[in-house]
Amino acid sequence: MRLRNVKNKEEILNNCEYLIKSPEKYQKKWHELFNNDNPIYLEIGMGKGKFIIENALQHPNINYIGIEKFDSVVATAIKKLPKNIPNLRLIRMNALDIDKIFFKEINLIYLNFSDPWPKKRWYDRRLTSKIFLNKYESLFKDKKQIEMKTDNEGLFIYSLESLSEAGYKLNDISFDYHKTHTDIIMSEYEERFNKQGKNVYHLFAQKK
Amino acid sequence: MRLRNVKNKEEILNNCEYLIKSPEKYQKKWHELFNNDNPIYLEIGMGKGKFIIENALQHPNINYIGIEKFDSVVATAIKKLPKNIPNLRLIRMNALDIDKIFFKEINLIYLNFSDPWPKKRWYDRRLTSKIFLNKYESLFKDKKQIEMKTDNEGLFIYSLESLSEAGYKLNDISFDYHKTHTDIIMSEYEERFNKQGKNVYHLFAQKK
Repeated sequence: MRLRNVKNKEEILNNCEYLIKSPEKYQKKWHELFNNDNPIYLEIGMGKGKFIIENALQHPNINYIGIEKFDSVVATAIKKLPKNIPNLRLIRMNALDIDKIFFKEINLIYLNFSDPWPKKRWYDRRLTSKIFLNKYESLFKDKKQIEMKTDNEGLFIYSLESLSEAGYKLNDISFDYHKTHTDIIMSEYEERFNKQGKNVYHLFAQKK
Repeated sequence: MRLRNVKNKEEILNNCEYLIKSPEKYQKKWHELFNNDNPIYLEIGMGKGKFIIENALQHPNINYIGIEKFDSVVATAIKKLPKNIPNLRLIRMNALDIDKIFFKEINLIYLNFSDPWPKKRWYDRRLTSKIFLNKYESLFKDKKQIEMKTDNEGLFIYSLESLSEAGYKLNDISFDYHKTHTDIIMSEYEERFNKQGKNVYHLFAQKK
């Protein structure tokens, strides 16, 4: 993602009530925070937030948490937030710490257009590397579910293999998702790729 | 596959007690033929038979049926058969008739290095096209299981998608199967590709 500096980003972050500043305090307590027992869907790398905000608005009975590493990007997402979305929270954090933030409370992880880290020596940084898949293990409430979209064929093939290897069963595999699925909520990226006629790859992974 | 004419192929076919001449007579009766309730694994397009013959010898408690379209190829397979393999039968037939031959008695289908039918107008002839996947539905005893290997990336991607679409869940997906799996029974093709250092693609598909 192109990083653009956002003026007053610290102020924006500090003043946002949906942004959780010390997320580790809520480990095992996210349902208390949301004040309900609805499922919690997590987007790792929410970018500018379009996907998760629209999902939260469309599905009030699901709780959404979006995490993102970069201050400026989180600030951009915050600027888009409508006033009242009780079922959405955002966290500015590094995904490597994910297993310190959640424990047996997540129902689904979304990975949308994650950084492909194209060089082989970077593969461990991919959000579907063994390192990350291991971290996700303790997050899930019961069934482990990961839904992934990407425009990067290399990352997609890597993920088909790494998820297989980690014992996930895959379905809804598509090498051209928009060909067969039209009525979907798109991320900023996805919208751009779609307009350019680029392929979007999709998979759904599940493990008991 | 390169088709080489085999001399006396009719004689070879006629004299083989493992070759089932009127397979439609055995629909719903294959367990009677094998005289046991062991699982039945079916290879569609067995080629020269190396894979299925070696499997049958290694796993006497599984029944194997290999089907193949071409007389000459079946004759070549027959010439390789050891004298006594009670858990193996062969059929010379067109896969399009498969649903007239079996009914709720197959546990697993192997598709090894099937014809990739590379042109788009031929896609329906692929053994993982919707037409064939529909035919397979009535064959399976309970769980539907398909294990596939190919050297053709186009056919592989097509199959990941078509099996997904048909409701299968996929695991053991690999775009370079020999890299991680060394102790496997290989078909004639596979052995050749392996020696040439070519990629072999693999998937396992399951549906309840």
